[in-house]
Amino acid sequence: MGGNSLGTLFKVTTWGESHGKALGTVVDGCPPRMELSVEDIQKELERRRPGQGKGTSSRKEEDRVEILSGVYEGKTTGTPIALLIWNKDVDSEPYEELKDVFRPGHADFTYQAKYGIRDHRGGGRASARETVGRVAAGAVAKKILRREKVDILAYTLELGGIRVEKVDYAEIENNALFCPDRDAAGRMAEKIEKTRLQGDTLGGIVEILVRGCPSGLGEPVFDKLEADLAKGLMSIGAIRGVEVGAGFRVAQMLGSESNDPLIPGGFEKNDAGGILGGISTGADILLRVAVKPIPSISLEQKTIDSLRRPVALKVRGRHDVAAIPRINPVCEAMVAIVLADHWLRQRAI
Amino acid sequence: MGGNSLGTLFKVTTWGESHGKALGTVVDGCPPRMELSVEDIQKELERRRPGQGKGTSSRKEEDRVEILSGVYEGKTTGTPIALLIWNKDVDSEPYEELKDVFRPGHADFTYQAKYGIRDHRGGGRASARETVGRVAAGAVAKKILRREKVDILAYTLELGGIRVEKVDYAEIENNALFCPDRDAAGRMAEKIEKTRLQGDTLGGIVEILVRGCPSGLGEPVFDKLEADLAKGLMSIGAIRGVEVGAGFRVAQMLGSESNDPLIPGGFEKNDAGGILGGISTGADILLRVAVKPIPSISLEQKTIDSLRRPVALKVRGRHDVAAIPRINPVCEAMVAIVLADHWLRQRAI
Amino acid sequence: MGGNSLGTLFKVTTWGESHGKALGTVVDGCPPRMELSVEDIQKELERRRPGQGKGTSSRKEEDRVEILSGVYEGKTTGTPIALLIWNKDVDSEPYEELKDVFRPGHADFTYQAKYGIRDHRGGGRASARETVGRVAAGAVAKKILRREKVDILAYTLELGGIRVEKVDYAEIENNALFCPDRDAAGRMAEKIEKTRLQGDTLGGIVEILVRGCPSGLGEPVFDKLEADLAKGLMSIGAIRGVEVGAGFRVAQMLGSESNDPLIPGGFEKNDAGGILGGISTGADILLRVAVKPIPSISLEQKTIDSLRRPVALKVRGRHDVAAIPRINPVCEAMVAIVLADHWLRQRAI
Amino acid sequence: MGGNSLGTLFKVTTWGESHGKALGTVVDGCPPRMELSVEDIQKELERRRPGQGKGTSSRKEEDRVEILSGVYEGKTTGTPIALLIWNKDVDSEPYEELKDVFRPGHADFTYQAKYGIRDHRGGGRASARETVGRVAAGAVAKKILRREKVDILAYTLELGGIRVEKVDYAEIENNALFCPDRDAAGRMAEKIEKTRLQGDTLGGIVEILVRGCPSGLGEPVFDKLEADLAKGLMSIGAIRGVEVGAGFRVAQMLGSESNDPLIPGGFEKNDAGGILGGISTGADILLRVAVKPIPSISLEQKTIDSLRRPVALKVRGRHDVAAIPRINPVCEAMVAIVLADHWLRQRAI
Repeated sequence: MGGNSLGTLFKVTTWGESHGKALGTVVDGCPPRMELSVEDIQKELERRRPGQGKGTSSRKEEDRVEILSGVYEGKTTGTPIALLIWNKDVDSEPYEELKDVFRPGHADFTYQAKYGIRDHRGGGRASARETVGRVAAGAVAKKILRREKVDILAYTLELGGIRVEKVDYAEIENNALFCPDRDAAGRMAEKIEKTRLQGDTLGGIVEILVRGCPSGLGEPVFDKLEADLAKGLMSIGAIRGVEVGAGFRVAQMLGSESNDPLIPGGFEKNDAGGILGGISTGADILLRVAVKPIPSISLEQKTIDSLRRPVALKVRGRHDVAAIPRINPVCEAMVAIVLADHWLRQRAI
Repeated sequence: MGGNSLGTLFKVTTWGESHGKALGTVVDGCPPRMELSVEDIQKELERRRPGQGKGTSSRKEEDRVEILSGVYEGKTTGTPIALLIWNKDVDSEPYEELKDVFRPGHADFTYQAKYGIRDHRGGGRASARETVGRVAAGAVAKKILRREKVDILAYTLELGGIRVEKVDYAEIENNALFCPDRDAAGRMAEKIEKTRLQGDTLGGIVEILVRGCPSGLGEPVFDKLEADLAKGLMSIGAIRGVEVGAGFRVAQMLGSESNDPLIPGGFEKNDAGGILGGISTGADILLRVAVKPIPSISLEQKTIDSLRRPVALKVRGRHDVAAIPRINPVCEAMVAIVLADHWLRQRAI
Repeated sequence: MGGNSLGTLFKVTTWGESHGKALGTVVDGCPPRMELSVEDIQKELERRRPGQGKGTSSRKEEDRVEILSGVYEGKTTGTPIALLIWNKDVDSEPYEELKDVFRPGHADFTYQAKYGIRDHRGGGRASARETVGRVAAGAVAKKILRREKVDILAYTLELGGIRVEKVDYAEIENNALFCPDRDAAGRMAEKIEKTRLQGDTLGGIVEILVRGCPSGLGEPVFDKLEADLAKGLMSIGAIRGVEVGAGFRVAQMLGSESNDPLIPGGFEKNDAGGILGGISTGADILLRVAVKPIPSISLEQKTIDSLRRPVALKVRGRHDVAAIPRINPVCEAMVAIVLADHWLRQRAI
Repeated sequence: MGGNSLGTLFKVTTWGESHGKALGTVVDGCPPRMELSVEDIQKELERRRPGQGKGTSSRKEEDRVEILSGVYEGKTTGTPIALLIWNKDVDSEPYEELKDVFRPGHADFTYQAKYGIRDHRGGGRASARETVGRVAAGAVAKKILRREKVDILAYTLELGGIRVEKVDYAEIENNALFCPDRDAAGRMAEKIEKTRLQGDTLGGIVEILVRGCPSGLGEPVFDKLEADLAKGLMSIGAIRGVEVGAGFRVAQMLGSESNDPLIPGGFEKNDAGGILGGISTGADILLRVAVKPIPSISLEQKTIDSLRRPVALKVRGRHDVAAIPRINPVCEAMVAIVLADHWLRQRAI
């Protein structure tokens, strides 16, 4: 049981349901004497906020974070930082008819199987809204890392089959899709609109780049850096695959191709994605994740109810077409949380 | 620091270096009163043992396991099970010249960066030999799961660019490559031999199938079943990518395609790979991992020594061409360890 | 760093400072489908609330708890239960003069030494007010245990040198001192008033009795039941000693005296205090803790400021004379939290 | 389940039964580049070895430790250190008649209740012999601490009702009882012999002194330094009480007495025992533990067998009279393990 905490020294615990009173996170282990403001966290929450772009949800939440503990006169004290976000724009009415129905692709069936009870409203704890707590905690982690000149950047590499052709970091924050290729972003937006009209949804791929990470982070054997990163990323609801560096491409490479030659200045190339033997090399860390289409679609689907009777289901209301944009900040948060933890662990050596 | 333990209730700790005196594992949390013999563990070790097949290493280790504690009159007692395997066929001489050289693709550079010291002999703790402890612990986990009719099967899906065309489970143990397609196995073996002559190495893809897993295993939010499985698998040295169910294919699917319709008997298809919202559905669990080519190649490579001077390196001796075959039992072990842990966690509910 | 979480399966994380916005706790791992109401928690908070009795603090807090997550339609769902209590009656003004002064017997000096920063207001995180979160979490644990007929009772055994002469459980809730001996309670109250006038404070001893605990709880070797109970109790700010069963009396006993003979119905006596070899015997669990006098006294004390200059300190305001009464519910909470965790762990076997 | 590991960064896992093949420990998280030899560990094992003094057991074990991993060319590498001690002088015959009988004061009854199976030979995992693994791990912890000028000393304060009258540290290693008072040591030895003839056993009190501990170790709230020390000490089989500083004496003190005044040079006295608010003050850490008499006595005792039938039991063979002497090194080990862990945790800040 449990499973709502992550980390050894930088420890994050999240709580909250989609239609509950609030969501929140407790960050235990943040170094003391670090400046931390509501604004530091708020700006990250804004980036993941529904209702921000064309491709996003219909729910309008202000997502104002409150810092309830652990900060005194603008600085962290070393004690746990409790962050809270109230749920305000909650309308559980459309979920009433879903109370006894298991939506395909959602956790409805498995929560019922596991617990014998579930808060069906808005998906309960399994809602994408749960990631609010991750992003809030990630904002703290990012601040720790930024002091060490470690920078994390997630961007949409592919959406609905449209792949970026170039990666221009400056472009990423210019569009609601976190897409580093302006042209591709345009085509993705069109695809989203078209798919919305069809009542369907889209998946994609997010790439995460970490620059400035020092060498030495990560622990053999089980707590390898890529292992903890994979866990952190794979724990995001919609993610179905994780790869580091060359990733699945290594399957078709020769050893002479996949090895990165070392040169006096570092590595000649970076197919390892910045991690060797579970420990950071000092080169950029590069990760990619596969994001499945949002399972809430307007099209009719076959499913069953809690008595295992067949049901023809159309999920009502206006839905997101793609989780991809919103997942970018969540990926950044998870990578930041894992790195902050390993950075602290390495300090103890 | 640390990182050599995995699990909450079924807790595995491994230790040992490639050229140290021995390797071992401590399994804490095995249920009591379960029959457990040396043979149960030995047979799994045989499956991963170097020198077993054409595609494997030149080191000849008997890998006889000793059960040092936790078993009384053939049954587990609930106390920790210590398993030990002596290193016998150790020849550190060929590594003497590598003492101050960082082999590309290996953990030599990062261990030095992290610890400021390393046991360079045979790769030390970062050697593939480290997986002996995983397989031994995995044998215990498998036994627990088998009592519950849960069965885990790993097989080579792709090697050196050769993909299986069919999956015949009966074929898997018939060839040294754990390949479920006899024809493909033949072509893979040829490719291995050809690549060996070139002094190069090959990567590939392993698929892991879990049959009989009950619904309800896995914990929201961070300890999702696929998250812990991804961590367990990604913690294996050579693995660079992990996916569940449709995996990276979801990027190009529509929601109406990727959702698995529920029917009274279960799920109409299984693109979810047996896990929804981090919890097992009761359907087969399906995972795939990308395995990089073994980094020890006979071809000359650019690298540096500990004084950051350029070195032209040819790794001497007879090397494995592909880690893929040996990694199959290791993948089974890791999946078994994670599932046994979650199975025990679910019992507490 | 960290240290604000406790437990393996029933996991409690607390946060909050004395003069911060709020205090709270996250309970992860509570079994699903258990009825849980605000009232269940509120009634425990009332028992520890300052301003409840003659011997208690001047701060008037309503201590209304809010359940923010994990409960749906009056029942736990298996997801984390977030509990929050706002700080309302906060007056930080009297602490202004203590900003750079280390109060003897308090954590002022050590927090500064550890973190290089501290929230001095009301003692910050080291305040007795921190126990609000423990009591709230303990209320959940108690509810779990009560379903299993496990009952926990803490009472004042000694206060200011006055020892109870009899233990009448029915008397405990009849006086503000949780004293099981009405006469002793009267004399204790007198002693408190007399000591208040002297500007001084009093210590004492609390005994905790657990009835109905099944045999089998507790884990060898390090997670022995008495070890985890000792940790849980010793983690309460004012506690300086913990003993189980005969406790320190064993030092002067013979083996033939301290051994509890087994008889067909159980144990003939219970000097073991209900635990043998780290595992519960099924007999009553009996623990005692030593509670130091509250360090805030009106009498002048020698101390230093942050520049290590001598200061003659009189702590202003109206203070508690004895922590003992308030610590009774906190002891119950900690014992409940530890037992609930071990009860769940035992279920997994 | 589980419970055989301790620590967050300096993590110790022990395994082994009294009459199994071997006992051992895995130390994960030892800093790299520290000199560590067999002799460093052996000398600590010698101090706890049965058959060393008048007051100790009849079993003759050489207790030669082997370092199986984690050390290369005499220095730690940062990877797990596996330590193994073979059981050699094992005679299980005398235990044959105890197979179905629960010895009073031992864990026989509770292990059976918990696991439904037990290795009865020599007490199995619950034997005092289990502490070999603690002492071996403690030797590593002590070495880490000694580099930081932290020194740990345990000594017998009381045995069989005889209390030391003075504490002369130089005397401690001069007698087999670790007694700091030569005269008291003589009287204790006499008492032991007299009690042996009576077929009975003795308890006592051990005091542990830590000198040179820096301020700042320990974590609020649950991982307070004294809480983790209490857990570590209370996890030793025979211990029934733990106190820090003035301990149970605080119950009868006034606040003006128990508070330690701060002066420019530190603390004027040390009733806090070197810990305030869970964090070390920089003063000596002082702990005391109550040790119960060894439960194996030659006198006839009432007990039951596994069918709950009454049995009159005389435990055969030559037994220890007092665990006290042997427990001194075990207490040192546990304190060292906890301090090393907190020292590493503090480094991460």
